[in-house]
Amino acid sequence: MDLITARGLSKDFIDDVFKKAKTYETVAKKKTAVDDLRGKTLATLFYEPSTRTQLSFQTAMHRLGGDVIGFSDPKTTSASKGERLSDTIRVVEGYSDVIVIRHPLEGSAALAAEYSSIPVINAGDGSNQHPTQALMDLYTISREKKKIDGLTFLIAGDLKYGRTVHSLLYLLAHYKVKVMLYSPPSLPMPQWIVDEVSGRIEVEVVDRLREDADVVYATRVQEERFPDPEEYRKSLYQIDADFVEKLKEDAIIMHPLPRVKEISPEVDKNPRAKYFEQSFYGVPVRMAILSLLVK
Amino acid sequence: MDLITARGLSKDFIDDVFKKAKTYETVAKKKTAVDDLRGKTLATLFYEPSTRTQLSFQTAMHRLGGDVIGFSDPKTTSASKGERLSDTIRVVEGYSDVIVIRHPLEGSAALAAEYSSIPVINAGDGSNQHPTQALMDLYTISREKKKIDGLTFLIAGDLKYGRTVHSLLYLLAHYKVKVMLYSPPSLPMPQWIVDEVSGRIEVEVVDRLREDADVVYATRVQEERFPDPEEYRKSLYQIDADFVEKLKEDAIIMHPLPRVKEISPEVDKNPRAKYFEQSFYGVPVRMAILSLLVK
Amino acid sequence: MDLITARGLSKDFIDDVFKKAKTYETVAKKKTAVDDLRGKTLATLFYEPSTRTQLSFQTAMHRLGGDVIGFSDPKTTSASKGERLSDTIRVVEGYSDVIVIRHPLEGSAALAAEYSSIPVINAGDGSNQHPTQALMDLYTISREKKKIDGLTFLIAGDLKYGRTVHSLLYLLAHYKVKVMLYSPPSLPMPQWIVDEVSGRIEVEVVDRLREDADVVYATRVQEERFPDPEEYRKSLYQIDADFVEKLKEDAIIMHPLPRVKEISPEVDKNPRAKYFEQSFYGVPVRMAILSLLVK
Repeated sequence: MDLITARGLSKDFIDDVFKKAKTYETVAKKKTAVDDLRGKTLATLFYEPSTRTQLSFQTAMHRLGGDVIGFSDPKTTSASKGERLSDTIRVVEGYSDVIVIRHPLEGSAALAAEYSSIPVINAGDGSNQHPTQALMDLYTISREKKKIDGLTFLIAGDLKYGRTVHSLLYLLAHYKVKVMLYSPPSLPMPQWIVDEVSGRIEVEVVDRLREDADVVYATRVQEERFPDPEEYRKSLYQIDADFVEKLKEDAIIMHPLPRVKEISPEVDKNPRAKYFEQSFYGVPVRMAILSLLVK
Repeated sequence: MDLITARGLSKDFIDDVFKKAKTYETVAKKKTAVDDLRGKTLATLFYEPSTRTQLSFQTAMHRLGGDVIGFSDPKTTSASKGERLSDTIRVVEGYSDVIVIRHPLEGSAALAAEYSSIPVINAGDGSNQHPTQALMDLYTISREKKKIDGLTFLIAGDLKYGRTVHSLLYLLAHYKVKVMLYSPPSLPMPQWIVDEVSGRIEVEVVDRLREDADVVYATRVQEERFPDPEEYRKSLYQIDADFVEKLKEDAIIMHPLPRVKEISPEVDKNPRAKYFEQSFYGVPVRMAILSLLVK
Repeated sequence: MDLITARGLSKDFIDDVFKKAKTYETVAKKKTAVDDLRGKTLATLFYEPSTRTQLSFQTAMHRLGGDVIGFSDPKTTSASKGERLSDTIRVVEGYSDVIVIRHPLEGSAALAAEYSSIPVINAGDGSNQHPTQALMDLYTISREKKKIDGLTFLIAGDLKYGRTVHSLLYLLAHYKVKVMLYSPPSLPMPQWIVDEVSGRIEVEVVDRLREDADVVYATRVQEERFPDPEEYRKSLYQIDADFVEKLKEDAIIMHPLPRVKEISPEVDKNPRAKYFEQSFYGVPVRMAILSLLVK
């Protein structure tokens, strides 16, 4: 089985990941290791910058007892000599048991999976999908709020190119939730994603940061998406201490990181801030995904 | 013992590598590990881009139970501060048990070996030599054709700067083979290599892709070797489905990879295509080399 | 406990490191491994080029039985997306047991330590400090000279920006030593460091390479520190065979490496040259530091 998009994921698979992640949480917290993937090799093919995703996959594989090979800079690989992705995949599948790939082009992970005889995990393909991030996001919510059904979400930032929020919205469609979408006018959630989930959950486009959310999910607005720097500056938003004080006492604030200015550092100490917990949950959730996919 | 060039390799050493590689093939195929180099450390010093060579050496060392340290981008090392290679080697020999080096300058691996008290393996020095590639190429032939003596080879592409074909020709000189060389006029096999082997094997320069070969070995023609882009375009060749159909039924097609356009992707499904098998054999052959060199 | 600067280090800590390093020396020399940090993870965050420091920390962690995650090129990380160092630290502390950081900004390691709940080791922050280098330097002296008290030092090169010599001078202040400082006129040891240690040890600025030293410690003069290339050329110095012959027979010559032209290669074979031994001692000393800091 591959993990390419959050779109087709079944509720059963999500439940399996969560159950397994729960059993790995102690290992991840105590920073110890198990033998579940002893002797297995993870190949991490990162054609785009990454800190968290790459390091947490490495950590997850080590905690499962496995080895890691791979690269983090395509300039140091044969990609710089014009090699096609499909060729790289067919070589790497001979060396490893599971492939994690991040690539700037949409559809690249799906292409990799098509050519690979071993499981492929999409760690971000352009502005398309980032399903393991969405699974750890959802897991964070289930752990920090103790439920998902009945919650109201505010998802803010670049919803057009933000692959993590695309994946997240598909996963949320499995639950009884209400979602408010807040973005700069030029960066709305793609209509076809909204259409697809709005039959199952309530989706509302809002024009300001709304305080009546149980979960505030902020994402980065990327300067390179704006031809005009003035437009970019006008599109910036910030979750600051004032806004946070207006939230429900048990609301939580999330961010896939890296953040630039979307969340003021003064918020970090507020008990509602959960983005570093969220980052930590990447380890048990990715351990769960790796151990479910690798036989 | 170092492994710097294919030129001086004895038939006995080749046989030892093949025998050992055979015993490691199951480990490589089942993707498991043994303890033969448990506690040993491989240092991979890559001053030039690589995917296959670096990942397969990493994989080989892991499957032998060993550890890997190293770098894949000289800009992140002290080479960027002007450190001499000989100094880097004398430092790294204190940290590891065997060194694999790829470097843009011819003779760099030999220089490294001169300064090193631990075994040095040349993973490509400029356009000079790439002996472990040649050993895995020859192993591929012995496994896929079940013999080497008596075969006819067509070696095509950039034969002037192609280090893998330089190394391969030296190894082939140990067998009873016939070799046809096909290259753009400006990129012939260096005469001194031809002179050296032609006393032992039959070497013929041909002016088209010949169908009467048992082994077709294609290599990349590199655009950067041509001052004139027009010249480059005229020098391109392609092994396509039409050509492949004219080959003997049991002929095999090889390529050290990465390929750009020398072999059409439509050939990949043809049973004669063996370049991905060839890439896979890099693991057992490099396991054999590492375990023979490291005491 | 963190290891950010050599300034505050107690003599007791230095003694503990040395005692521990001594016990690890055989492991490092025989290139074997122990289980002291089995299951623990070291994160190496290198925002600046490094060969020795990074490879020796990796080697040290492997020889302690532990795992390593990290990066060596900030361009491949979220730093390239504008992430603050403090955010990176709070993420990485969730994945590892100890952090080693090299960063171009002075004070960056101290900042990292402030945010981290796990030990942080400074592997160089701008031109400020490099305490693990100083500890291995001092250890080298204690091993090669069998004592530290009573020795006379000549420290030469860029003393203004050279972080290793800043750290070393603080450590030497714990002993009964005499230190001669030799630098280009524009690159003297910062006065506040001299002031701080000169109450405890004898410090003298000298205007030539003095032969009456027991330990000659040379460092690189970096071209980028000079606006005028002519100034740079005039600032170069070299320890050559002639100078070395004038040294006491049991004097030793050290260099943190990489060297460019400060020590002529002809000196390498002189028995007084100890810079490669010094580089090797990085492994047992860093093993000691890691095992003392990680519980």
